[in-house]
Amino acid sequence: MRVLAVCGSLRAASINAALLRTAQRLAPPDIEVSVCTLVGELPLFNPDLEANMPPSVAQLHAQVAAADALLIASPEYAHGVTGAIKNLLDWLVSFEPFVGKPVAVLNASPRAHHADAALKESLRTMSAVIIEAASLGIPLLGSGVLEPDMAKTPAIAQALCESLATLQAAVANGGVAHVLTYPVGLP
Amino acid sequence: MRVLAVCGSLRAASINAALLRTAQRLAPPDIEVSVCTLVGELPLFNPDLEANMPPSVAQLHAQVAAADALLIASPEYAHGVTGAIKNLLDWLVSFEPFVGKPVAVLNASPRAHHADAALKESLRTMSAVIIEAASLGIPLLGSGVLEPDMAKTPAIAQALCESLATLQAAVANGGVAHVLTYPVGLP
Repeated sequence: MRVLAVCGSLRAASINAALLRTAQRLAPPDIEVSVCTLVGELPLFNPDLEANMPPSVAQLHAQVAAADALLIASPEYAHGVTGAIKNLLDWLVSFEPFVGKPVAVLNASPRAHHADAALKESLRTMSAVIIEAASLGIPLLGSGVLEPDMAKTPAIAQALCESLATLQAAVANGGVAHVLTYPVGLP
Repeated sequence: MRVLAVCGSLRAASINAALLRTAQRLAPPDIEVSVCTLVGELPLFNPDLEANMPPSVAQLHAQVAAADALLIASPEYAHGVTGAIKNLLDWLVSFEPFVGKPVAVLNASPRAHHADAALKESLRTMSAVIIEAASLGIPLLGSGVLEPDMAKTPAIAQALCESLATLQAAVANGGVAHVLTYPVGLP
């Protein structure tokens, strides 16, 4: 399984980015996690540019098309999604290979629920398949656990491995996990 | 009163941009509406850049500081705010002059409520003062009314003039209009 990991923060010391890199390191040999480096390279979404796709957007599209699943970790800014993650999603709204794509959403700050809910609402609206059982809250923010220790911290390592394994099972099942959870979130 | 008008779409033919330009044209002599041209110029928000503010962000900060009020019109993309408008707000999160700033939010597609609600939630969290009585739904999307006719269409012209007048009264009152509405939206 090829997983494209997408971080919604551009901060170098982002705990969400650290979490995704840790997932990459912990992934078993049959799961390839690549961390998307295009988030900060994308232009702000403008429908007028879609006729002549900017190179970074074309690259994003190729990476999304090639991935079996997405793993998103994004902070909450002012009770909302980050502009950066929503901008990336805006470029995927009319991108057909994103339809039906299995997605897990990690939340490194489970007490922050606005951005998590808004992100999932947009993903559902875009017809992605949210794998709820792989979408875990991992209480990292304020925990003091930094990147070098994440993989050694059992609660974090277990959550990441569980998320990847559940995502893998869902992908193997053709995204069937969504049958259990999708109707719950229907508008 | 100086109003900074901010559009959350970068599309040249955006009806939200057209609506704001129409407000600019209809504004009485004592209300100066300037349409912010920086939305698409801002880099994606990165806290690491705040120590050495990018020029477009410094310009945005100067425009916001100089404005008595903001007038925002932004579309909904995939049941969410646009990445562009949230990115602009992300740059204002820790900008002290934004605290207490009166803001009106126009909604050109009142049937779309997710983005409107999310935008207001973020604005409240950033301690802006949402002037609810000036925040109107103007059912433009799908109406077929294009920019040249907006000022001549009574329902649209009246709504825009009412929004500006209410915003002006709230600014004159030191933003007191929020006393009526702010508690409703408290988390």
